Amino acid sequence: MAILAVGSVAFDTVTTPSGHAENVLGGSGTYFSLAASYFTEVRLVAVVGEDFTPEHEQVLTKRKVDTRGLEHEKGKTFRWGGQYLDSLNDAKTDFTELNVFESFQPRIPAEYKDSEFLFLGNIHPLLQSAVRLELSEVKLTGGDTMNFWIQGAPQELRETLKLVNILMINDGEAKMLAKESSLPRAARKVLTMGPKALVIKHGEYGATIFFRDTAYGAGGHAFRAPALPLEEVKDPTGAGDSFAGGFMGYIASQGNMNREVIKRALFYGGVMGSFAVETFGTERLQNLTRDEIDARFQLFRELTHLE
Amino acid sequence: MAILAVGSVAFDTVTTPSGHAENVLGGSGTYFSLAASYFTEVRLVAVVGEDFTPEHEQVLTKRKVDTRGLEHEKGKTFRWGGQYLDSLNDAKTDFTELNVFESFQPRIPAEYKDSEFLFLGNIHPLLQSAVRLELSEVKLTGGDTMNFWIQGAPQELRETLKLVNILMINDGEAKMLAKESSLPRAARKVLTMGPKALVIKHGEYGATIFFRDTAYGAGGHAFRAPALPLEEVKDPTGAGDSFAGGFMGYIASQGNMNREVIKRALFYGGVMGSFAVETFGTERLQNLTRDEIDARFQLFRELTHLE
Repeated sequence: MAILAVGSVAFDTVTTPSGHAENVLGGSGTYFSLAASYFTEVRLVAVVGEDFTPEHEQVLTKRKVDTRGLEHEKGKTFRWGGQYLDSLNDAKTDFTELNVFESFQPRIPAEYKDSEFLFLGNIHPLLQSAVRLELSEVKLTGGDTMNFWIQGAPQELRETLKLVNILMINDGEAKMLAKESSLPRAARKVLTMGPKALVIKHGEYGATIFFRDTAYGAGGHAFRAPALPLEEVKDPTGAGDSFAGGFMGYIASQGNMNREVIKRALFYGGVMGSFAVETFGTERLQNLTRDEIDARFQLFRELTHLE
Repeated sequence: MAILAVGSVAFDTVTTPSGHAENVLGGSGTYFSLAASYFTEVRLVAVVGEDFTPEHEQVLTKRKVDTRGLEHEKGKTFRWGGQYLDSLNDAKTDFTELNVFESFQPRIPAEYKDSEFLFLGNIHPLLQSAVRLELSEVKLTGGDTMNFWIQGAPQELRETLKLVNILMINDGEAKMLAKESSLPRAARKVLTMGPKALVIKHGEYGATIFFRDTAYGAGGHAFRAPALPLEEVKDPTGAGDSFAGGFMGYIASQGNMNREVIKRALFYGGVMGSFAVETFGTERLQNLTRDEIDARFQLFRELTHLE
């Protein structure tokens, strides 16, 4: 079933211990769409400027991402610059040029209105809510957010959280959102804010999903999937959105949403995140095969499963 | 088969977000021995002072730990004070009084000489080497160390590492020892220094074991076991040594040392670590049952295993 993704398309300038890349195609919408495209039909809503060329758009359309929701505006595309020299888990931002993203008002094409899965990338909570409320067929909404909104738009974010079924954030964001220093306590508190499940991403240590009691069937209250101990992380940018793409893409590709599907989806999220960081930008996510993806899924299983 | 453990016995004064405890029985030898005692016979070599009472010794002997290697010296037992107010993963040391531990020279009782498993707790690398060289029947040596020795006695530590089969350290120690910022690269480098396997402990995220190519049979080069997402960590002190006790205790309890045994041992390590942090001091480790341990092992499995 189709996923509608709303998020950013950006040009990133990134420095890591492995090197430097300038103005490579990125953004939450881009990483999510490419990662999810290996599992299901993806429809993208985002905004780009005049510097976004047909060649850039082909990166998406070659993976059969539906770009009818991509708005082309006068001006430049969102640009971000950052470095990961001290830690691969935390980016230090060098510059942010919002450009056309500053006045982004997501418009949902009529052809997208029947979408049953929705991913709300990390944009203003008010915009996230507006998109969700415009779609009446949605069965599952996944959402992301960040410190900037947790601190800067707490009330608006609270409203959005009531509309999000599975929230995907990292350790620091979960603790900040819940005002709790213990992750499990933070998780329990976030699950009272709306979401039925919370995915906490631990970077190189994988991710844990916490469930509300009977959400998505019976089962334990938590499940953990690994990240691969990769020798070389070239560029961590986009790992979280690629994780979300693998996670939601896999769920959307299955007929139902039970616990076992969601657990496997957590593994596929880690798998897509692990591919994303192998190159600067989206290069690795552009030319994968489903066989490569499933082989890595198998590696993740062997890394964690007893006989 | 019996494990000989050499390490510290201490009285700890600890402050955590959950409270405060004064002069509770602790030390690497104590935590290790109690945790391992649920799996196999344990023989302890350590030193205590005159403030170590028969009641303290009974904590060990009630768990059938062999304390004939416990040396009673004039003076006070090793004392450590610390707090975990900023982070449950890093202790801030308030004070260290080495006392009788300062001149500790491990003496191996004749009755211990046939030990086939050896745990070298975090003491001076020269003492670790001396103990190992005195034992001719040892089949498996597990070892711990810390930043203090990595920086302060690098040459001596290099010699010790040649005698250790499975090294158990945490993320920061692995990176410091290998002078590498990436964990998998650090692991590969440490595995050229002597150990056939390296366990890297990730605190609340669990632990990963990295193997040299064909060490302990065929299999992947890494395996990861979780820690339990615990609502309340009362006192993290001793978690690493309890992990080591569960890990080595389980291996020693099995007839052989193949990959599958070692993987399950990594789970049991996490299980014993998770019990240790539930109370201040060793209280929780004193009164467990094997049923409780196996029930938690099952929880760890459900937390990580797909159908």
